[in-house]
Amino acid sequence: MVWASLGQESISGRANKDGELPSRDVKVRMLPLFAEIQEDLKVVNSELRRLLVHPDPLLTQTATHLLAAGGKRLRPAFALLAARFHRYDLQRLLPLALALELIHMATLVHDDVIDRAHTRRGSPTVSAAWGNRISVHTGNCLLAKALILAAQYRDPLVTRELARVCVKMCEGEIMQLTGATVSSVREYLYRIKCKTALLIAASCKLGAAVAGAPLAVYRALGRYGYFVGMAYQITDDVLDLSGTQAQLGKPVGNDLRQGILTLPVIYAIRRSGAESRLGYLVAKQPKSEQEIEEAIRLTIIAGGIDYARGVAGRYLAKAIGELRHLPDVPTRDSLRQIAEFVHARRY
Amino acid sequence: MVWASLGQESISGRANKDGELPSRDVKVRMLPLFAEIQEDLKVVNSELRRLLVHPDPLLTQTATHLLAAGGKRLRPAFALLAARFHRYDLQRLLPLALALELIHMATLVHDDVIDRAHTRRGSPTVSAAWGNRISVHTGNCLLAKALILAAQYRDPLVTRELARVCVKMCEGEIMQLTGATVSSVREYLYRIKCKTALLIAASCKLGAAVAGAPLAVYRALGRYGYFVGMAYQITDDVLDLSGTQAQLGKPVGNDLRQGILTLPVIYAIRRSGAESRLGYLVAKQPKSEQEIEEAIRLTIIAGGIDYARGVAGRYLAKAIGELRHLPDVPTRDSLRQIAEFVHARRY
Repeated sequence: MVWASLGQESISGRANKDGELPSRDVKVRMLPLFAEIQEDLKVVNSELRRLLVHPDPLLTQTATHLLAAGGKRLRPAFALLAARFHRYDLQRLLPLALALELIHMATLVHDDVIDRAHTRRGSPTVSAAWGNRISVHTGNCLLAKALILAAQYRDPLVTRELARVCVKMCEGEIMQLTGATVSSVREYLYRIKCKTALLIAASCKLGAAVAGAPLAVYRALGRYGYFVGMAYQITDDVLDLSGTQAQLGKPVGNDLRQGILTLPVIYAIRRSGAESRLGYLVAKQPKSEQEIEEAIRLTIIAGGIDYARGVAGRYLAKAIGELRHLPDVPTRDSLRQIAEFVHARRY
Repeated sequence: MVWASLGQESISGRANKDGELPSRDVKVRMLPLFAEIQEDLKVVNSELRRLLVHPDPLLTQTATHLLAAGGKRLRPAFALLAARFHRYDLQRLLPLALALELIHMATLVHDDVIDRAHTRRGSPTVSAAWGNRISVHTGNCLLAKALILAAQYRDPLVTRELARVCVKMCEGEIMQLTGATVSSVREYLYRIKCKTALLIAASCKLGAAVAGAPLAVYRALGRYGYFVGMAYQITDDVLDLSGTQAQLGKPVGNDLRQGILTLPVIYAIRRSGAESRLGYLVAKQPKSEQEIEEAIRLTIIAGGIDYARGVAGRYLAKAIGELRHLPDVPTRDSLRQIAEFVHARRY
């Protein structure tokens, strides 16, 4: 999940950053869950396109490169759904929805910054096409634009919350870069909280806040987003080991290849011991493709996949549990279905 | 001024980003201009140190690495001075002063991201010591912390203005990265406006805004900051060609070495023609040290240095002209002296 060492993980094919699945099938299957906000998501998309046009042609080019790569606009979708629990007003929600997506896009561009030369296959990333420094500034520009949008609200809550999440996201990224070999379950959970869950939680919370929802609704939606976000990332990490290349649209075992320890592997090493063959394989860098396959097999045998699926399931149960604090409107059922979908997805 | 290709331009020795001069003499000579806010700048410094402590030890380490490198806190100083034209309240100004310095620090860290392996001499940059990706996330973290501080004000003006300046700063950096060989005077002025002048202008404007100053004062201070910022950067670019290594604390001709065209060179090429020996030398990459020396000599002969000093002088005259719109308090005289200092400095 760190930076791409392979082209398949490039922006246009990127699938595992947070489960933004590139496969058309997935999009088709996930979209009905967003049916009630589908038209409004189209408005978000066209506004996003308008926003990314910049007087500097290169900045427009790099930013729209990202846009062309697609994406389900998951974070804007959560914000819009959350707002449906109170006074839903698309115009009022737009700055938030756009800011959320811009922050997400900024992390994708910054993820492309690399530390050494890489030969990439597949679609080029911003960094591969234009260089690291251009990636840094493109990402910063997206981030700053997000905060201009956030500052359109009179209440500084939106800016403050988004900026706080950004600090945490950096923390998560740095943990992932530096702490890869000393991971514990606890560290892993904190890392994915920073990396993925907090921005989804903020999407839900702030959607409710902008809609003027009462504090209890705001909080319940924040917890729902957090739990769904955690489950989403764990499932993503599981699929990196248990999916097939065809399902994922990228090679299996990418995290292992990059030296990132995810929940199934952390559990399996704990079961088999650091001195085990699995412990040896995971620590070895670089690994051959055969070694990656062997490590995946050993992880499965040690029950790592089942364990991680169990943890994701518990997060989703908690997410669904939060729904009882929300008004009984049709959107509540959509949120339940989204949680169920996250659990069931196998691609 | 782009990224460091030499260790001397590393964070601790960095001198040319925007004239943050590393020499002790300069600090000693510039400090009296800030005498009336000197004690308060110490508070800014200690708050900055407190802010940079982070639960992640590496983030603390990278950020305090920057702090240890020193700096005059020029942007906080301008904000504090501007506030003296109305209701000066240090506690109220602190979040702004800290946010300004954090944004500046973030640009320094992001400037260290490099596109290829470099052997660096002198003090290591964050990037050289910890890698590009760590630099990206450290910079982002500083930026996000700045915006958390900005969002402490009930009025979203501070956040909006700072985020806008950040967008412009990215634009300036990208222009510098991509437009190095097609520079015109106009492009150059726009580039340094984005890169340096707008943040100094924002420091002055927002200092006044936080102090509750009337609109006329706010605007005059914004223009003063803009003109001083332009002159500051032009003078900096002149010194890169006319100073000595001992004065600058870094090798002369760094911009030429990195392929960045600054005002004296742009003017000199216009005078001598793109087909001239100077035009050839400037376009050639990489250049030998002898070729850099020759290009500097030709720039001086063509009157490039004198021309640029003249332009800086006109900006400073405009800066001083703005002071007549301000209340007649002692700080007004400090601002005049600062403008005169920028013009006179030879190091």
